[in-house]
Amino acid sequence: MNLLKTHKTFAGLTQIWEHDSKATATKMTLATYTPSRTPKGCLIWLSGLTCTHENFITKAGAQRYAEEQDLLLVCPDTSPRGTDLPGEHEADDFGSGAGFYVDAKTEAYRSHYRMETYITEELISLICERYPVRGKISLFGHSMGGHGALTLGLRHPEKFVSLSAFSPIVHPTEVPWGQKAFAGYFGENSELWKEHDAVELLKAGRKHPNTILIDQGLSDPFLEKQLKPERIKEVADKAGQKLKLELREGYDHSYYFIASFVESHIKFHAEHLKNLG
Amino acid sequence: MNLLKTHKTFAGLTQIWEHDSKATATKMTLATYTPSRTPKGCLIWLSGLTCTHENFITKAGAQRYAEEQDLLLVCPDTSPRGTDLPGEHEADDFGSGAGFYVDAKTEAYRSHYRMETYITEELISLICERYPVRGKISLFGHSMGGHGALTLGLRHPEKFVSLSAFSPIVHPTEVPWGQKAFAGYFGENSELWKEHDAVELLKAGRKHPNTILIDQGLSDPFLEKQLKPERIKEVADKAGQKLKLELREGYDHSYYFIASFVESHIKFHAEHLKNLG
Repeated sequence: MNLLKTHKTFAGLTQIWEHDSKATATKMTLATYTPSRTPKGCLIWLSGLTCTHENFITKAGAQRYAEEQDLLLVCPDTSPRGTDLPGEHEADDFGSGAGFYVDAKTEAYRSHYRMETYITEELISLICERYPVRGKISLFGHSMGGHGALTLGLRHPEKFVSLSAFSPIVHPTEVPWGQKAFAGYFGENSELWKEHDAVELLKAGRKHPNTILIDQGLSDPFLEKQLKPERIKEVADKAGQKLKLELREGYDHSYYFIASFVESHIKFHAEHLKNLG
Repeated sequence: MNLLKTHKTFAGLTQIWEHDSKATATKMTLATYTPSRTPKGCLIWLSGLTCTHENFITKAGAQRYAEEQDLLLVCPDTSPRGTDLPGEHEADDFGSGAGFYVDAKTEAYRSHYRMETYITEELISLICERYPVRGKISLFGHSMGGHGALTLGLRHPEKFVSLSAFSPIVHPTEVPWGQKAFAGYFGENSELWKEHDAVELLKAGRKHPNTILIDQGLSDPFLEKQLKPERIKEVADKAGQKLKLELREGYDHSYYFIASFVESHIKFHAEHLKNLG
């Protein structure tokens, strides 16, 4: 990892890194916050549509709480960059800035858009080479990144101690954002789509051993058309997956909402990570 | 004021407004944070070079502390927008995004670049029409906005209860940023320049009744060439102006530095504002 920038923040360091990724066959950029004391765990943040590695680390105000809880924060980018694939840069909700945390299967995208492998294998290896957090990694995210946190966590429960999400796309196979992205990354095979849909994964019997925390603003303009948090609550209850859904009156889809509740998410993960002993 | 956006943040509201300004003869944009309880005072933030009304409200993490202290935050833009004056859009350190909080005297700029009148008269009037904070307004800012907070506060001490700054340009007449801007806004009359230089104002006997708080990072790349905080400390000590200069090891010029210490600045102002009774 090549260090691009360091900014002292609270008592720790916000840093920006670049590395050559085997998974995506591109350079990848990420942001980290390293607390001043030895980290007791690592929290990977997955951002939403149009975001980069920078949105969370500049706008969420999370460093204060990561410092208080002795947690390393890691914020990867939302897609490969620097390629020019068919349709990659034409829309906000597909291609660059919109990798959806899947390994694409379509011919146009399968060589580079391998975000599931990137996050669950390569990024974890890179982190564990550098920081003493092996086996102590949790996952959270926002919107498309909330989808990423839920699906990667349900598909790889052994890799992530705890999962949480702000305003996640819980049922991508049934909403426009997910349908567009999955058609582009997987083609028309809808069985493959279901393997990357949190509601469908729970229906199919996948579980995470710990409670999943979801925060959702009730003034979110995407609530009814794209997010549908009630769907995952119903399915989780039936499947016996513990899930805490916090519906927040008046809050929207922005980082102002995330900033308002990020302390509670960081404390949630810190409790699970510290219980590992 | 025309409300453009509202985002619930912590228990209060982050809002973006636009209005027709008499001072600048342009539209002006600003951001506010209104706490959930009746505000006990107002804190105006002046941003630095290249910033808009948005940088502080998205990146500083200040809303949490404004909510805790029952303070209204007001973040104006750093210059008029929408004009096309000679040289206005050619550089980061002059013209748009770089109004330096002065009323320009040069022919090209004097019709629109009237940021001192805008902040000290028009903005205060607008705020006091809408919120119960008359006589309870304090001022802080960063870099060029730190210069703005110090000079507007020393020039109009009756209008601002307390003053603070992060990484301010304290002696613009002696550093490249200030010399370029003042030549463009005032022409070559160096007596006029001194009236907008915090060090020169203190030398000339201007004072603020309360302690001025300054935070400066010691890894700030602009420290020696543009900022020179030791100059204001020397002059303040001689002039009998109470001034607390906090030099912070390892911190740079970024919003990561501001976010790390904004709580202490907000508490500083809250104490002065609440002491008004």
